[in-house]
Amino acid sequence: MKFNTSGSSMSISSEIAPEFKHRLLAIVGEENFSDQSIDLVSGSYDASRHRGRPWAVVWPRDSESVAGILALAQQERIPLVPRGAGTSLTGMAVPARGGLVLDMCRMNRILEISIKDRVAVVEPGVVYEDLQKALSTQGFFFPPDPASGKVCTIGGNVAANAGGLHGAKYGSTREYVLGLEVVIPGGKSMSIGTRTMKCSSGYDLVHLFVGSEGTLGVVCQVTLKIDPKPTAFATTLAAFPSLEAAGRAVSEIMSCGVIPSVCEFFDSNTVKVLRQHGGLSLPHSEALLLVETDGIRQEEADLHMSVIMDVLSTCKTTQVRKARDRDEAQEFWRHRKNLGGLKNLLASGWASEDVTVPIGSIAQLVSGIDRIVKSKGLGLMMFGHAGDGNFHPVILYDRQTSSHEVLVHEAVQEIFRLGLELGGTLSGEHGIGMEKAPFMAWEHDEPSLAAMRGIKALFDPHNIMNPGKMAMG
Amino acid sequence: MKFNTSGSSMSISSEIAPEFKHRLLAIVGEENFSDQSIDLVSGSYDASRHRGRPWAVVWPRDSESVAGILALAQQERIPLVPRGAGTSLTGMAVPARGGLVLDMCRMNRILEISIKDRVAVVEPGVVYEDLQKALSTQGFFFPPDPASGKVCTIGGNVAANAGGLHGAKYGSTREYVLGLEVVIPGGKSMSIGTRTMKCSSGYDLVHLFVGSEGTLGVVCQVTLKIDPKPTAFATTLAAFPSLEAAGRAVSEIMSCGVIPSVCEFFDSNTVKVLRQHGGLSLPHSEALLLVETDGIRQEEADLHMSVIMDVLSTCKTTQVRKARDRDEAQEFWRHRKNLGGLKNLLASGWASEDVTVPIGSIAQLVSGIDRIVKSKGLGLMMFGHAGDGNFHPVILYDRQTSSHEVLVHEAVQEIFRLGLELGGTLSGEHGIGMEKAPFMAWEHDEPSLAAMRGIKALFDPHNIMNPGKMAMG
Repeated sequence: MKFNTSGSSMSISSEIAPEFKHRLLAIVGEENFSDQSIDLVSGSYDASRHRGRPWAVVWPRDSESVAGILALAQQERIPLVPRGAGTSLTGMAVPARGGLVLDMCRMNRILEISIKDRVAVVEPGVVYEDLQKALSTQGFFFPPDPASGKVCTIGGNVAANAGGLHGAKYGSTREYVLGLEVVIPGGKSMSIGTRTMKCSSGYDLVHLFVGSEGTLGVVCQVTLKIDPKPTAFATTLAAFPSLEAAGRAVSEIMSCGVIPSVCEFFDSNTVKVLRQHGGLSLPHSEALLLVETDGIRQEEADLHMSVIMDVLSTCKTTQVRKARDRDEAQEFWRHRKNLGGLKNLLASGWASEDVTVPIGSIAQLVSGIDRIVKSKGLGLMMFGHAGDGNFHPVILYDRQTSSHEVLVHEAVQEIFRLGLELGGTLSGEHGIGMEKAPFMAWEHDEPSLAAMRGIKALFDPHNIMNPGKMAMG
Repeated sequence: MKFNTSGSSMSISSEIAPEFKHRLLAIVGEENFSDQSIDLVSGSYDASRHRGRPWAVVWPRDSESVAGILALAQQERIPLVPRGAGTSLTGMAVPARGGLVLDMCRMNRILEISIKDRVAVVEPGVVYEDLQKALSTQGFFFPPDPASGKVCTIGGNVAANAGGLHGAKYGSTREYVLGLEVVIPGGKSMSIGTRTMKCSSGYDLVHLFVGSEGTLGVVCQVTLKIDPKPTAFATTLAAFPSLEAAGRAVSEIMSCGVIPSVCEFFDSNTVKVLRQHGGLSLPHSEALLLVETDGIRQEEADLHMSVIMDVLSTCKTTQVRKARDRDEAQEFWRHRKNLGGLKNLLASGWASEDVTVPIGSIAQLVSGIDRIVKSKGLGLMMFGHAGDGNFHPVILYDRQTSSHEVLVHEAVQEIFRLGLELGGTLSGEHGIGMEKAPFMAWEHDEPSLAAMRGIKALFDPHNIMNPGKMAMG
């Protein structure tokens, strides 16, 4: 494993040249352009700790405008940063090198829901929850389930290959993107992928764009595979005497013959937060698992849960109980999704991570993270999508104590190294962005990185697409 | 849509230069090399109509030999054709331009099955059925289910993005490949992807290699996600008065809220063949659907089937009956998988296709194919994985009648055009190979093709990897 600790470039302050602005306005119209301070500030951050001021913000209305912008920007070598709802935790939507923010929120039409074809066709600015509501009325859903679903956009989900609570059973965004309309630097449009359930025709360009963090081109249309929405659920809560016991239980559950629809992990600090701020009646414990099974009828969800209950009966637990009813279960999930916001209540500073390991290594990961963070004298709140080995340790610290920032930096790097040593990856669902760009060489070997950079140069020879992200230029 | 009717290059007869042979033997050893006629003939064909003689055949034993071969071949500009079991129906394994066949059958170790991690790690020459047997003893399976499973290899499955009977519910090979070890021209090894259930770290090189038909490099190791194996099944047979009625029923079934584990379609000629040669007691009918649901207990499979039976009760059927028992159901599937071989019994010549359309267009596709083939006075036997819109029309003709070949060629092209007009793809699971290379521009727009060719040139600048395939050089 090689170490590369060079940081990614930070933002460059600049203003938009009058001639360029003039040409840009001719493409998007005055009402879809701003270089006012308030919009530049809005476009300068996302949910990460990174910041970078753009020169202007544009709101494209259609793929023709996007093509015009990409032709002009290529000519003038202007950095472009596509933006959804700005919920990225890795700085994916932050202008690392100035340029234009392409805020896609006005391309937000659900173009088609075809239950017969089992697809939904949407523009990238469609809000995740709006799509789910529209699908729900027809008994279908888009299975990935990011915690930011109330506000995040489908375009952002595609850029990050978003995951969420349902990953273990249903997979991530990548598994549901059948086709894309993308505009690449220079302004050419490509229609890639298909509307069919399967395809073996040429190289898979669709999956190359999913998770590419806006570094290859701008997604203007997404064709998603959709699934029948389960209508029955069973939810169980299991408390454990140690992190390790909970980690082992996850491995046992995931190999028992039933894949639960959700298997969420909470450490004791998370439990505390959920009790205090969520008002949830959770048992005091070192670790909790919240497990859900689903089906088309209650007896199916119950049948699957009974297999999991058998497994739990052989595990070291301190308490196992079923949710009283669907309302209580939904309370759990609502508070689970708010956890990201609650970390601010615990400490003035926090660093949220997204490490993922093979399922059999979960016990080692969670006890290792706990050891690393405690050895630095820092606080920890840890939760995650245990069913697919994806954990979000949140390191808590005091922003006023200057030595803390160094310790957090060290702890994060030790966590990355631990995850990779256990056969894991830097990111399960948040992507690389600016946050993890310096660590790409820890995970990927040199020929792989060279191949990725070759692909970047093929689509974006002048590095105008979201530069400074993913260590791609 | 543009038409490009230039054919792919045919084989060039040549011999291996003594100096090259000498260096090759130093890499693989005498026992893993042959330029004997019998081996050259064996390496000159696959299950397609294409033929092309290699200069020699090598059987690499490990990734180091593969790296040595790829370094030497790059230096000497020698075409390389990776080969699994040679079951390709599109000429994927045929040496279109001579060179070396890399027969991967001696790299056939199952390196690891980790139920705890939910993965299997295998060499590419592992026979599909051997892997399934090994997984089965531990209650797991690799869900894609190609009809050639008794003999085909995992490496071939990866190269073609193989599908099969379970696609609608479980997806194709692509959905199960987590990581790959590949050697690229020049001899460098890349470890791409992961062992984790999900990953958002860098560009998705794994899915680029899956379905790349051996045109980018040689896969030396595959990490597959595995699923718990269902243990209970319900199978139903529904007969229809017309192709269209069966096609409509598929769309109804696929949008009813339950995704069946199998939904196979047979036209009247296929039914005839199955009755005569399989001895199956199938009803005479214009079209049949064989539908299977699965689960962990019989009540679950039955529950899902009851929803599908409700749908069928509203469709235009002539008969609906459940399989008597699991033995009868397994007889169906066994004969279904032998259909590819039975076509030889019906006519001296045949052309087998692999068109896939959105599910809602199935009725139009099957009646359109029937119309096209009959209008040419040719015979037709049509079956397919209806649940994911994937059909295999087999056009039957007399090889002694010279006009027939022209008519078959016309019919195939009309079927491609129909499928694409209906929003479909040239290939659902057999790939492009030599067979469909001339038609790539019918499906993919020019910027997409340019991007694919750019990717090809990036990995294989001298076009030594399986040249003449997929219209990639």
